[in-house]
Amino acid sequence: MKIAILGTGMVGETIASKLVELGHDVKMGSRTAGNEKAVAWVQKAGPRASQGTFADAAASAELIFNCTLGAGSLAALEAAGKENLKGKVLVDVSNPLDFSKGMPPSFFVSNTDSLGEQIQRAFPETKVVKALNTINASVMVEPSRLPGEHATFVSGNDADAKAQVKQLLTEGFGWKQVIDLGDITTARGTESYLALWIRLWGVLGTPDFNIQIVKKG
Amino acid sequence: MKIAILGTGMVGETIASKLVELGHDVKMGSRTAGNEKAVAWVQKAGPRASQGTFADAAASAELIFNCTLGAGSLAALEAAGKENLKGKVLVDVSNPLDFSKGMPPSFFVSNTDSLGEQIQRAFPETKVVKALNTINASVMVEPSRLPGEHATFVSGNDADAKAQVKQLLTEGFGWKQVIDLGDITTARGTESYLALWIRLWGVLGTPDFNIQIVKKG
Repeated sequence: MKIAILGTGMVGETIASKLVELGHDVKMGSRTAGNEKAVAWVQKAGPRASQGTFADAAASAELIFNCTLGAGSLAALEAAGKENLKGKVLVDVSNPLDFSKGMPPSFFVSNTDSLGEQIQRAFPETKVVKALNTINASVMVEPSRLPGEHATFVSGNDADAKAQVKQLLTEGFGWKQVIDLGDITTARGTESYLALWIRLWGVLGTPDFNIQIVKKG
Repeated sequence: MKIAILGTGMVGETIASKLVELGHDVKMGSRTAGNEKAVAWVQKAGPRASQGTFADAAASAELIFNCTLGAGSLAALEAAGKENLKGKVLVDVSNPLDFSKGMPPSFFVSNTDSLGEQIQRAFPETKVVKALNTINASVMVEPSRLPGEHATFVSGNDADAKAQVKQLLTEGFGWKQVIDLGDITTARGTESYLALWIRLWGVLGTPDFNIQIVKKG
């Protein structure tokens, strides 16, 4: 499948590399074609990897991952272009973290709204699926690096889009537990959880962790 | 130990009953002495149980649990009286849930502040420990009702106060994993998590669940 990865950071690169490994054709998009990190990734990732602008990446893709920083996500998606995103599934991995007020970060949108919803409202003809935003990049694509079962989540308005993402997460990335939380407003749940995740990172001394849901018999 | 439970709801009653069972003298406080639910609880719970106003309960207590609804917590604690709370450990179980905008609830304070911090600021001479606010009442006092290990959290500025609460949670309530997240600002983490907890409740069809932290190695 032709997949676009928007963003050249750790999350983008990790997911892009995994998708290439799974046999997909992956184009990494950034603000300008020839971005240094994107070019370096293409050289490393081989013939199925390519790079270009956000618009280049989105235009040719059947599936798109938003791996840009939350604060830049709406602008990156605007640059990708409404027409290039229309009718497609957009996996939104971003979090609305605000680093401008010091550490730990707070949220620039939260409580009665979420970044996932902002993106869905801005691109109503795109099928936004919030996913993977509750875990570190290394865990996203290799859940088996943590012992036992643990959970990841999807939120979105389109059932088929969620089913497609769920299939990629389970069959592709190896997730055993993908919990469908409901429509895109449930992204408030996973985005808000980041406030706990960040403190747990501090206490555990590693971002290499996740949560398992423990339920009565 | 003499313990005050502020609040006559499900959480207050469940914790109060458990504490009586553990051999403590428990006074349930509410807005007015003779509150119907408090009186019914005293009759059920036996000679170690008593009831009175918020101030009655706090005045005689060595340890205080805030089990009032979040929206009423500051007023309840004001009614309990600054002098009656001074120098004491206050376990804050409340969550800043706002039910006025429909279901699921949103938060009336979140992101760059928390209800735990609001309470600590309003009562600077009280040792506030945020605890147990991430789970259902039945799980709070009987963690073994869920299979395997799972985690609960404490947040607070006073190390001795947290140690005391941690001891009660482990030796009294049977918790195996009490994670100290840090100072009272980390209550933002556990309070924000409620946004995910509420959606998980919807999906799982029961509030009888919790999370376990799964970590590498």
